Amino acid sequence: MTIALPLKLQEPLIIVNFKAYRKSTGTQAVELARKAEKVHKETHVVLGVAPQFADIAVVAQAVDIPVFAQHIDPIEPGSFTGHVLAESVKEAGAAGTLINHSERQLKLSDIDLAVKLARENGLSSCVCANNPRISMAVATLEPDIIAVEPPELIGTGIPVSKAKPKVVTDTIRLVRQVNSRVPILCGAGISGRKDISAALRLGTQGVLVASGIVEAKNPYAIMREFAHALKDQ
Amino acid sequence: MTIALPLKLQEPLIIVNFKAYRKSTGTQAVELARKAEKVHKETHVVLGVAPQFADIAVVAQAVDIPVFAQHIDPIEPGSFTGHVLAESVKEAGAAGTLINHSERQLKLSDIDLAVKLARENGLSSCVCANNPRISMAVATLEPDIIAVEPPELIGTGIPVSKAKPKVVTDTIRLVRQVNSRVPILCGAGISGRKDISAALRLGTQGVLVASGIVEAKNPYAIMREFAHALKDQ
Amino acid sequence: MTIALPLKLQEPLIIVNFKAYRKSTGTQAVELARKAEKVHKETHVVLGVAPQFADIAVVAQAVDIPVFAQHIDPIEPGSFTGHVLAESVKEAGAAGTLINHSERQLKLSDIDLAVKLARENGLSSCVCANNPRISMAVATLEPDIIAVEPPELIGTGIPVSKAKPKVVTDTIRLVRQVNSRVPILCGAGISGRKDISAALRLGTQGVLVASGIVEAKNPYAIMREFAHALKDQ
Amino acid sequence: MTIALPLKLQEPLIIVNFKAYRKSTGTQAVELARKAEKVHKETHVVLGVAPQFADIAVVAQAVDIPVFAQHIDPIEPGSFTGHVLAESVKEAGAAGTLINHSERQLKLSDIDLAVKLARENGLSSCVCANNPRISMAVATLEPDIIAVEPPELIGTGIPVSKAKPKVVTDTIRLVRQVNSRVPILCGAGISGRKDISAALRLGTQGVLVASGIVEAKNPYAIMREFAHALKDQ
Repeated sequence: MTIALPLKLQEPLIIVNFKAYRKSTGTQAVELARKAEKVHKETHVVLGVAPQFADIAVVAQAVDIPVFAQHIDPIEPGSFTGHVLAESVKEAGAAGTLINHSERQLKLSDIDLAVKLARENGLSSCVCANNPRISMAVATLEPDIIAVEPPELIGTGIPVSKAKPKVVTDTIRLVRQVNSRVPILCGAGISGRKDISAALRLGTQGVLVASGIVEAKNPYAIMREFAHALKDQ
Repeated sequence: MTIALPLKLQEPLIIVNFKAYRKSTGTQAVELARKAEKVHKETHVVLGVAPQFADIAVVAQAVDIPVFAQHIDPIEPGSFTGHVLAESVKEAGAAGTLINHSERQLKLSDIDLAVKLARENGLSSCVCANNPRISMAVATLEPDIIAVEPPELIGTGIPVSKAKPKVVTDTIRLVRQVNSRVPILCGAGISGRKDISAALRLGTQGVLVASGIVEAKNPYAIMREFAHALKDQ
Repeated sequence: MTIALPLKLQEPLIIVNFKAYRKSTGTQAVELARKAEKVHKETHVVLGVAPQFADIAVVAQAVDIPVFAQHIDPIEPGSFTGHVLAESVKEAGAAGTLINHSERQLKLSDIDLAVKLARENGLSSCVCANNPRISMAVATLEPDIIAVEPPELIGTGIPVSKAKPKVVTDTIRLVRQVNSRVPILCGAGISGRKDISAALRLGTQGVLVASGIVEAKNPYAIMREFAHALKDQ
Repeated sequence: MTIALPLKLQEPLIIVNFKAYRKSTGTQAVELARKAEKVHKETHVVLGVAPQFADIAVVAQAVDIPVFAQHIDPIEPGSFTGHVLAESVKEAGAAGTLINHSERQLKLSDIDLAVKLARENGLSSCVCANNPRISMAVATLEPDIIAVEPPELIGTGIPVSKAKPKVVTDTIRLVRQVNSRVPILCGAGISGRKDISAALRLGTQGVLVASGIVEAKNPYAIMREFAHALKDQ
């Protein structure tokens, strides 16, 4: 079953990007998603999980929280070997998809096409951007969510909300010039409760987080901490 | 459960590439794989199926024939969003993977790495090549299977074994100079029983086929026909 | 000597993209550029020429009209074999550069970086876009010129200004929401005087044209015709 | 004028890759090439230089030693904006081209095509490879020269001939299984006279070198030292 995503500015959101970590592959992807679901049930905070393509089906069967693909290709059904079709991840149970993550960047025209294909297939699109100016460019393409992540901070544990607050506030200012409603997440280096609070105070609607949770000793505890930080805001 | 692939030169093989066709996505992927399994049970010919990433798990659960990924990325587990990890498709139930299909070509050093990663993860690697010279280059990398497909014939219904028999015989001659054991498949335009017989007579160990089966009115009938052509050889 | 480009909205502009046509390579690139210069001297219309990388230096030495690179890579000087450094084309005599042509598309973050590098190196950036929405996205990155070209019309002789006037007017409308001053060119299929007049009437500041001139029997006559159409507007 | 390359196994060779270093761009490219030419005149050792695309014409006009492009694209003349046509670099004065440098890697089928296009256009092809197995694969494509460079040593000053002699000897052994005549260079970290001597003793026909010369305080002195090391062998 596909669990849809409530996309309202007032409701904060955490998306956990499973990337290709060993700790979030296969059966461990299911276990991690179950922990995210537990935190959601306890706190009512919206948590989405983005497992690898081959894990979408088993994760979506196992949990009642929104599942994201990590990427879709800008293609219609047809003769495309080794590509990721929007229809395919949707049928496997995805509710949304990341697009243009800094580790899987696309040509501009392909971002435009991928956002349209996500929309046509009932997938929420979360388009990633490296800086405020690129976030503004992305906003003109009318995705469902924008996530700004300075790539130099990804995986460092140095939170963007603390190290580069101006990146976050500039992103919000520029995006709002062209799009008044799109939820804006920030990511990169998010690893503690304070980072979440800071991100919300700067004006975001939530966070996109990966190693801070996947590689943590106790992912459940961290997610619960993050969810409470979101609620308490 | 992962169904392993018997890789012996004397045993002919059909791999059905599901590509990103609508008719071979999601539940239809499972149905098509079941038809392939039925043909295998009736004829004892080895049929492998290569569904999209998101369908590997459900297909592998549904059938007892070898399942291939259509591609893997040349990466170890880690911070790689939107990539396809060998471990991931293996755990989902894949027995092998296509590499370097003409619709998903790789840099040479990435083919080398992907073949090694497939081997380390217990996946049979079927590396695709466009022409005899490239097949020979590929053979030096010691994949488990080589499939030669002239890209200009893919999806045309004009069989390589009839239109370009010299491509097939040159491939076999050049590959055998550097690798005496690797099974060699041919593909592109394969759509009838005669094409299979011709492919085997030219010296191949089987075929890689896509639209000729996936887009057929009766894929089961075609696969059965192909399997009988393989047996009768 | 680098011939700079007067970039004012009121002054219309023709950029001739030499692509990799045989007729615009090497000595023939110089001859074609000389014809463009002759038209410029006769009509005072601004004509820019965009030869291949290896021809920039000889073309820039031969003519006193603005020369564009067809692409720059998003790199600073350093260890980048086979890349195109902004400094390099600048020193060879280029006054500007195309960026993100539909035949040489870039990741979004690389367009952003290439526009910045062009600016830092005194090169006018002309960023290409496939459709109105992408043109708007590009406009947020503050390039010096935007050129909208529906890729399906490139090289067809079916002019965008006639076949898809709405693409042109939508582009102008969306771009002007975020950028009031950037000159907007249109391209694809431009082959006659009427196409130029139509393009200007729709609100553009000129055209980006390739095969319509390079592959013409008499490129000089066509460029003169285009220039007069621009002047008469 | 194009200076052709004597390609005989008995004659050792140094190719200096100018990459996109500031010190080897534009007028500094010409100066560096003149120093290489001086060393060639003094020692009669064959030195080739590989400047950036936009510098090929001025460098080739200035010196009487072989000039290489750093890359060519796998294209015939036509509608390819921002690409590098073999005809174009040939007409600008190149005698050869690097292909598949580790900083500009190609799909396998594109290496095959680029080698053919180089041959058809009278350009010597020097195909780069990362390791012995890839060198063997490359050798089956029949390039004019093979250069093996472990990418992890590029730019480090740790010479491959000292740090990884087995990479060099394995390359020679595997390449000779499929190609008895192609000259084999090694590269990465080459910075002193001893590295050259070691490279030749291991069985190579010369070196591909970049930062060790371009970034040196006295490139002329280093090139002369390298040339003498080659002669003395």
